[in-house]
Amino acid sequence: MKVLVVGATGTIGKAVVHALSSRHEIVAVGHRDGQLRVDLADKASIARLFEATGRVDAVVSTAGAARFRPLAALTDEDFAFSLANKLMGQVNLVRVGAAAVADRGSFTLSSGILSRSPMPGSTAVSLVNAALEGFVRAAALELPRGIRINVVSPGWVTETLQTLKMDASAGTPATVVARAYVRSLEGADTGAVLDALGKG
Amino acid sequence: MKVLVVGATGTIGKAVVHALSSRHEIVAVGHRDGQLRVDLADKASIARLFEATGRVDAVVSTAGAARFRPLAALTDEDFAFSLANKLMGQVNLVRVGAAAVADRGSFTLSSGILSRSPMPGSTAVSLVNAALEGFVRAAALELPRGIRINVVSPGWVTETLQTLKMDASAGTPATVVARAYVRSLEGADTGAVLDALGKG
Repeated sequence: MKVLVVGATGTIGKAVVHALSSRHEIVAVGHRDGQLRVDLADKASIARLFEATGRVDAVVSTAGAARFRPLAALTDEDFAFSLANKLMGQVNLVRVGAAAVADRGSFTLSSGILSRSPMPGSTAVSLVNAALEGFVRAAALELPRGIRINVVSPGWVTETLQTLKMDASAGTPATVVARAYVRSLEGADTGAVLDALGKG
Repeated sequence: MKVLVVGATGTIGKAVVHALSSRHEIVAVGHRDGQLRVDLADKASIARLFEATGRVDAVVSTAGAARFRPLAALTDEDFAFSLANKLMGQVNLVRVGAAAVADRGSFTLSSGILSRSPMPGSTAVSLVNAALEGFVRAAALELPRGIRINVVSPGWVTETLQTLKMDASAGTPATVVARAYVRSLEGADTGAVLDALGKG
């Protein structure tokens, strides 16, 4: 399959590319690096991306930023940024990209464990992640031509915790998280929120 | 308690006011009617509302609109409207209103069953409802002074189905839905998504 990986230069994205590249043709998309670039917060940038790729079999997004900050400190701009970037950026990948995806192709988006297991500071992130899960459950009912859509909800990634100098013992290695994206891509799920905790 | 009911003129809002008014002082807020008015999509309007009410013990919102339309027909404006109104309108009730709520007071917001049980046409609504549930789970960890926050997720309301001339036999009467709001207000839950199906 020809698979567009948006966020291919990130911690999870690199692991997803690694897991898929022996069996699939990868088009790696980054924000600042990659074969192609996209600004998820800019719908016109997403449209240009799909003009550049032409038909693809699947779109995997491990991209999108949202602001982690105490509730009382979150500004209007923090919410607007989070909604425009991680949420509507990924929603618009689907809205704009559906026409470019082959019959029986798929979308795989990324939310995160904070949707259901919040922590202080996660309000905007939890809102965005939960919204993506609601979007995917609903969009699965309406995508045309047998196109599937799932969202992977990674827990804390070991490599991310190490970068943040936090306790990494409860983390899931990116290679294990990547398996959930492979399952979404190669399996039959649709409308699913796939945990990525290494249990599946 | 002095309870601000935002959306007091709607089907559920009226039932909530009826259920609470024998035991609590109600300040009824509507979009076009009510003792006080608010435009949830306008944060300045929310600020003026709390300037008018002064200190309250609880805020209940049964308000907020989102667009029900096939995925392929949803416009950028439909998403922007839904995010600004039902989602950020209720989020901003909390952000702006927290300072006006008494110690150990509460917020009760409204999502809806489409967050978890979508149907064709519900993509924007499902996104918004799920986002509200993620927001409430997270915000509960950070609200100050023992302020609680929950979200009621009503199923289809009998009276609404009747208005839409749909099969109302599977609906939940508004008086039953209202019990979930009473539970949120008078109980000890926080960070909870309260179903309103008459089973609780």
